[in-house]
Amino acid sequence: SILRNDAPLATIVAGIQRVLAAFKQANDLDEVVVVNLSSAEAFSRRMPEHNDIGALAACMSNDDKEKFSSGIVYAYAAIDAGCPYMNFAASISEEIPAIAQLARERGVAHMGKDGKTGETLVKTVLAPMFAARNLKVMSWISHNILGNRDGEVLANPESAREKLRNKSDVLTNILGDDSVDSQVRIDYVKSLDDWKTAWDLIHFNGFLDTKMIMQFIWQGCDSALAAPLVVDLARLLDHAQRAGLSGPQRHLACFFKSPTAVNEQAFARQFEMLVDYVRSCRESEQTT
Amino acid sequence: SILRNDAPLATIVAGIQRVLAAFKQANDLDEVVVVNLSSAEAFSRRMPEHNDIGALAACMSNDDKEKFSSGIVYAYAAIDAGCPYMNFAASISEEIPAIAQLARERGVAHMGKDGKTGETLVKTVLAPMFAARNLKVMSWISHNILGNRDGEVLANPESAREKLRNKSDVLTNILGDDSVDSQVRIDYVKSLDDWKTAWDLIHFNGFLDTKMIMQFIWQGCDSALAAPLVVDLARLLDHAQRAGLSGPQRHLACFFKSPTAVNEQAFARQFEMLVDYVRSCRESEQTT
Amino acid sequence: SILRNDAPLATIVAGIQRVLAAFKQANDLDEVVVVNLSSAEAFSRRMPEHNDIGALAACMSNDDKEKFSSGIVYAYAAIDAGCPYMNFAASISEEIPAIAQLARERGVAHMGKDGKTGETLVKTVLAPMFAARNLKVMSWISHNILGNRDGEVLANPESAREKLRNKSDVLTNILGDDSVDSQVRIDYVKSLDDWKTAWDLIHFNGFLDTKMIMQFIWQGCDSALAAPLVVDLARLLDHAQRAGLSGPQRHLACFFKSPTAVNEQAFARQFEMLVDYVRSCRESEQTT
Amino acid sequence: SILRNDAPLATIVAGIQRVLAAFKQANDLDEVVVVNLSSAEAFSRRMPEHNDIGALAACMSNDDKEKFSSGIVYAYAAIDAGCPYMNFAASISEEIPAIAQLARERGVAHMGKDGKTGETLVKTVLAPMFAARNLKVMSWISHNILGNRDGEVLANPESAREKLRNKSDVLTNILGDDSVDSQVRIDYVKSLDDWKTAWDLIHFNGFLDTKMIMQFIWQGCDSALAAPLVVDLARLLDHAQRAGLSGPQRHLACFFKSPTAVNEQAFARQFEMLVDYVRSCRESEQTT
Repeated sequence: SILRNDAPLATIVAGIQRVLAAFKQANDLDEVVVVNLSSAEAFSRRMPEHNDIGALAACMSNDDKEKFSSGIVYAYAAIDAGCPYMNFAASISEEIPAIAQLARERGVAHMGKDGKTGETLVKTVLAPMFAARNLKVMSWISHNILGNRDGEVLANPESAREKLRNKSDVLTNILGDDSVDSQVRIDYVKSLDDWKTAWDLIHFNGFLDTKMIMQFIWQGCDSALAAPLVVDLARLLDHAQRAGLSGPQRHLACFFKSPTAVNEQAFARQFEMLVDYVRSCRESEQTT
Repeated sequence: SILRNDAPLATIVAGIQRVLAAFKQANDLDEVVVVNLSSAEAFSRRMPEHNDIGALAACMSNDDKEKFSSGIVYAYAAIDAGCPYMNFAASISEEIPAIAQLARERGVAHMGKDGKTGETLVKTVLAPMFAARNLKVMSWISHNILGNRDGEVLANPESAREKLRNKSDVLTNILGDDSVDSQVRIDYVKSLDDWKTAWDLIHFNGFLDTKMIMQFIWQGCDSALAAPLVVDLARLLDHAQRAGLSGPQRHLACFFKSPTAVNEQAFARQFEMLVDYVRSCRESEQTT
Repeated sequence: SILRNDAPLATIVAGIQRVLAAFKQANDLDEVVVVNLSSAEAFSRRMPEHNDIGALAACMSNDDKEKFSSGIVYAYAAIDAGCPYMNFAASISEEIPAIAQLARERGVAHMGKDGKTGETLVKTVLAPMFAARNLKVMSWISHNILGNRDGEVLANPESAREKLRNKSDVLTNILGDDSVDSQVRIDYVKSLDDWKTAWDLIHFNGFLDTKMIMQFIWQGCDSALAAPLVVDLARLLDHAQRAGLSGPQRHLACFFKSPTAVNEQAFARQFEMLVDYVRSCRESEQTT
Repeated sequence: SILRNDAPLATIVAGIQRVLAAFKQANDLDEVVVVNLSSAEAFSRRMPEHNDIGALAACMSNDDKEKFSSGIVYAYAAIDAGCPYMNFAASISEEIPAIAQLARERGVAHMGKDGKTGETLVKTVLAPMFAARNLKVMSWISHNILGNRDGEVLANPESAREKLRNKSDVLTNILGDDSVDSQVRIDYVKSLDDWKTAWDLIHFNGFLDTKMIMQFIWQGCDSALAAPLVVDLARLLDHAQRAGLSGPQRHLACFFKSPTAVNEQAFARQFEMLVDYVRSCRESEQTT
């Protein structure tokens, strides 16, 4: 982690910003979009200082490293430098109110968090079906196994905590029901390499209390699922920035497990938000 | 089948209508909704006479039984008698233009066809996800096994033809892609009784031509899934009839595998049509 | 646990033996077979005192409860009283050398441990196939979910430890390969009640390093699978006792996850041991 | 098929034998083992002429092509030329009594038929478990999908008939029960290429008539599973031939779905036959 670095926070931030500026100049770019693609961080505690940019900036000046995750440091550095920022990782980062405040002040677009690539994507597609058909989900058990670096990091319960929360919260939100027994496991299985495999069992209750079961098995290549989303998101964030939008870009919710400043978790409705954005962009382009 | 009856078609229709009238009177009802819940019929050919109520009525007068399925006879009898009619079965019935014409003339609401209770429901929920993520579905293989009377009837390829078409067409429609290899099997497995089990394998292609696989297994109790839909549909059709609506009730599309007069097959968007209907009914009730 | 009882160990043992004697007399029985059907115990440490009946008896006289699990106390009481004893539970019990010694001294037949009812049964059936075909198993991942009292107890990692060891060791033994990545999870899912569901993924390597996958899903009713085994075992243990056999009854290995004094874990070969026993009993009966 | 060749049967056989002799000479070989690796043939009828080598030879002289499959022609040619012959395909070939007679006369070892590489292998491993535990299998449903040339050929019901029989008969044999509802489907799914995928659902009945389900999914690379078996079989057949054995080599039963002249279908017991053979070979080598 960057925070194991001995240098003071302010020095680290200045260093990151120098790298960004150099990269921009060297490649003769108009805009640099910063994307957090690191593995999940152990840091998972929300703090009062996260709610106000003044308080957070003070912590930075005082070099109070306890208040910062790597994700927050990078988000701070990028947004402060005017770069659109996207958090594709599970870690705490741009979603804290202090950063949102900074983004508005700097006029910078940002969005997160935790790319929705596989098992959680399917969850947010299937769960609305059960709700729409009034089939009460009693239990939703998810077992994820994978063998890449992400899997290795998530084998550490501290690192997995934020990820598991993102993967599980979607159900309670969509089903509108606290009583669903939602359990998520992530285990590291080296031989699988990048082939993330998930088994989900959904135990649900229908008419006349009939208990039924749906199961799915997802065998996806994690990187091949994530990469095109990152490319699309970088373009879309750049587009929003050029259109003069700042703060959280809610129309990108369908790309994330825990979309910043968006309550909607049902994938189909999130996708409609993106379609609406594209439609309204086209209309305003035609008017001009 | 009712058509194996020796009586002339016109006599059969009059007989059905007498039964409906007697039932209505005996139970002191305002309205009788007729629901086709029979197993799939072998009859599956569209004919020119199905396109015009005059031509169809002439066939009936001439007792030309070749032109009629049981489903068409019942739909004719019910709608001609002013009863809202719903085709929950896979057979050809109210969706032919001649019947729609009759329904408009009589001011009768109707809808079909083929209740979307399990495997096809899941298909129309999952397929839009692959389209939205630009994951090209190469093959979608469905194997359905069940042991109830429906399963027994569908073991006959003639009877299964219309059902298989309904179950398969949804994919081409949603994915907008004729090249998907969509295969559906339905086999009769007596020991399973009413426990319809479906295994679906979806072979899809992602970024950099990476081939990936999703599978699902659906273990549902067929009757317990169908019954509440039938109850809801009867109420909703009755509601539409009372509201003065006639012809195909498109807002009920989410209940059917092959919704009459509706192109949309994606479940989430079909469900929005129902939500919109309910919302607009509420608004007009509040205005009144 | 019986050990939370305030009474001294010797008093507890005497109490158990009184109950057994009373039961035998009240029902006018020739023989009482004692079966341990309790849920898994947290106690899982092997101790030097477990290796010698003299040392264990001394611990009992000194009321040294640290050295005893409930399973050991019951095994001691039953065998000391001349009752054949079977450990169907995962806990440490009759398999310790001290008890085996006591059984030989008293001429009592016994066997354990941990009934092989479902997922582990399948493991010991499938694993020999991979070995016989020289398909190298890289990973074998097992996820068990269940909602009965056993599941509740096993949600406690301390209680699950012995069970997980029994479920995992079979693979290393059969595959003769320490390098297999064998992982077992047991999670409590209340809504499933007695319906133990297991998902196993086997990742194996074939000719020319081709990686392949087999998965299985076991949906069994735990009690309905265990009960007939317990009945059969009680009869078989009684039969052995009457035939004058004492000590661990190796021919019953096929009933247990971790068969006492037996190295063979492959189910088919264990079953042959039972078939051989039956055959030799028949032959000696015919000779007589 | 070779039989679409206009040449008379005797000429075809002589041609095959010339090729074998030339291959043997060109490569300076002691022995040539002939392996039938072709896709399944449509020919599947047993005829009286298949029971006697004299009758079959007469049909050949009379060029009565109706009595011959390609598999029989090749088996005849190879064995008549003194080459050990193995039928790895599903077609009718060396297992007919006439060929066995020829093999004994020429002193040639042979074996078949239909390599047991994947789904059927698992069947013959799992079915004995259900029998040993007295769990009554009510239905065993197998759905195989694959995209290689074999899959394409088997999409033709005529070609699949013999294969389906081989895949299904094993169950009745092992379970000793004609009442099991055994259904096997093989469908061609081009996109899967050589990745044969099988879904099996086993519906079984336990204690107190409790219905339970086991499912497995096999994702194997067909060629990588078959190739090493073919190599091993060629060596083993050569070994038998050198050891002076002729006729069907029963100890190779574990490699075949429908082993010639062997009733045993349980894999573990078939494998013991191979182990016994190896053991007895070693012993006789040591004696010598």
